[in-house]
Amino acid sequence: MKNIYIVGVGLIGGSFALDIKKLYTDVIIYGIDKKENHLDEAIKLNIIHKKGEIEDLKNADLVILAIPVDATLEVLPRILDHISDNTIVFDAGSTKEDICAVVKNHPKRRNFLAAHPIAGTEFSGPKAAINGLYKNKTNIICEVEETAFKLQKKALKLFTELGMGIRYMNPKAHDKHIAYVSHLSHISSFMLGKTVIEKEKNERDIFDMAGSGFESTVRLAKSSPAMWTPIFKQNKTNVIETLDEYINNLKHFKTLMEEGDFDAVYNEMETTNHIKDILNGINRN
Amino acid sequence: MKNIYIVGVGLIGGSFALDIKKLYTDVIIYGIDKKENHLDEAIKLNIIHKKGEIEDLKNADLVILAIPVDATLEVLPRILDHISDNTIVFDAGSTKEDICAVVKNHPKRRNFLAAHPIAGTEFSGPKAAINGLYKNKTNIICEVEETAFKLQKKALKLFTELGMGIRYMNPKAHDKHIAYVSHLSHISSFMLGKTVIEKEKNERDIFDMAGSGFESTVRLAKSSPAMWTPIFKQNKTNVIETLDEYINNLKHFKTLMEEGDFDAVYNEMETTNHIKDILNGINRN
Repeated sequence: MKNIYIVGVGLIGGSFALDIKKLYTDVIIYGIDKKENHLDEAIKLNIIHKKGEIEDLKNADLVILAIPVDATLEVLPRILDHISDNTIVFDAGSTKEDICAVVKNHPKRRNFLAAHPIAGTEFSGPKAAINGLYKNKTNIICEVEETAFKLQKKALKLFTELGMGIRYMNPKAHDKHIAYVSHLSHISSFMLGKTVIEKEKNERDIFDMAGSGFESTVRLAKSSPAMWTPIFKQNKTNVIETLDEYINNLKHFKTLMEEGDFDAVYNEMETTNHIKDILNGINRN
Repeated sequence: MKNIYIVGVGLIGGSFALDIKKLYTDVIIYGIDKKENHLDEAIKLNIIHKKGEIEDLKNADLVILAIPVDATLEVLPRILDHISDNTIVFDAGSTKEDICAVVKNHPKRRNFLAAHPIAGTEFSGPKAAINGLYKNKTNIICEVEETAFKLQKKALKLFTELGMGIRYMNPKAHDKHIAYVSHLSHISSFMLGKTVIEKEKNERDIFDMAGSGFESTVRLAKSSPAMWTPIFKQNKTNVIETLDEYINNLKHFKTLMEEGDFDAVYNEMETTNHIKDILNGINRN
């Protein structure tokens, strides 16, 4: 690999650039971003070598697309229009169904690998890019059979070198499951933040009482609305289903409290404590 | 200070013991716990020096009560029955109204300081005790005017030496505000865990897709039901109020999604992003 183009030089794209530069010391990393100041910042932070253009992509060995999922629907086909037969393109979006659908009949469909690295932080922009973000993380790859085998191999080699584990899934199952383990927890966190901020308006200094538990639970409420709004839009049906189940569970818990059935309240929590073992499983990966 | 009794040698009591032993090298720390194996463990882990009995408390300079808040209602009056005039007793419970009420007319009320150190982790038991747990944490003290001034000073000196900041509050305000910044986030986390675990029953491997964001949001769902059930019971009215507001905010978010009003979805998140500054404030403490 010689010429690598990163489209979207934020947390996700920038972190790919940082690790790739260490792995392949002779590559040139080009950045493409609609925000000119992000490109300048990415150069200054030694994330990318230089600025690039969509029109230059015929020279690309690899294109990594890491922009909000609504913009991906528009930019991905344009990228495929410009690449050569030997270019592999992968995305990193948190939805997969719409993205796979938009390129379904593109003549260069076999140059695209639909990916979702389960990695990130609540921060965004080039400054948020960090080394080793992808180490020991899961990368979910969708409809792998639609990608040319030779190009798959190129991308998978990179993922392995970055330390990622691969899981194959169809886009429909991906979007349904990720709604539970990622999209819902963002909403629960945002709404928890909202509930407490609203209270704070009337009652000062409530946050002086907040500890590390609150901080952990509300961490995702720092996330970028520009990134998350299109995710919720594209995954609307699944996210609404998870919200329904979450709201019902909260209502049930409230009813148990209202009825004074604290044995049942205890059981609700004890059953859910099982999450310990599950999270230990995550950390073992 | 010479004889210090820790009633409840778990995360909170054990962590007090560890730090106090470093500050006052010549004290003897006695442990009292209804679980004999916790006392043995606490001795083995060098948390306490020896086992004690409620009946010995006349020799105590300081008693720290760190047991679930339902047990506190029963044990605190018994402790006050046994102490000397010079003993200071403080608790560490996450509710304050019922605890202050139960000793309101006790002849030794002025030997008790109602405290709530905002510190802890999702773990419990002697093994969970850690050094420096209280450094830079807030300690909320309720109805300080009910405690003898000389004894207040003794406790406040210790809190300062442990690195804690003090906030004074009345028990009613404490219980109302802590419902928002602590009790609600535990329920939101438990119910998020429940929602995802229920899904997992039918759809295997969903947790392979979970990342650090989910882990952070669901962390409190590892907490001890034995500790949290009595907290929710004692603070029932306030917790139900926070749950109502939280459920309404979630329902509103769901309605916006159903109506396809993603500009409003964006605004919901952007407004709540303000939580960043608030959390930075917490970390500066």
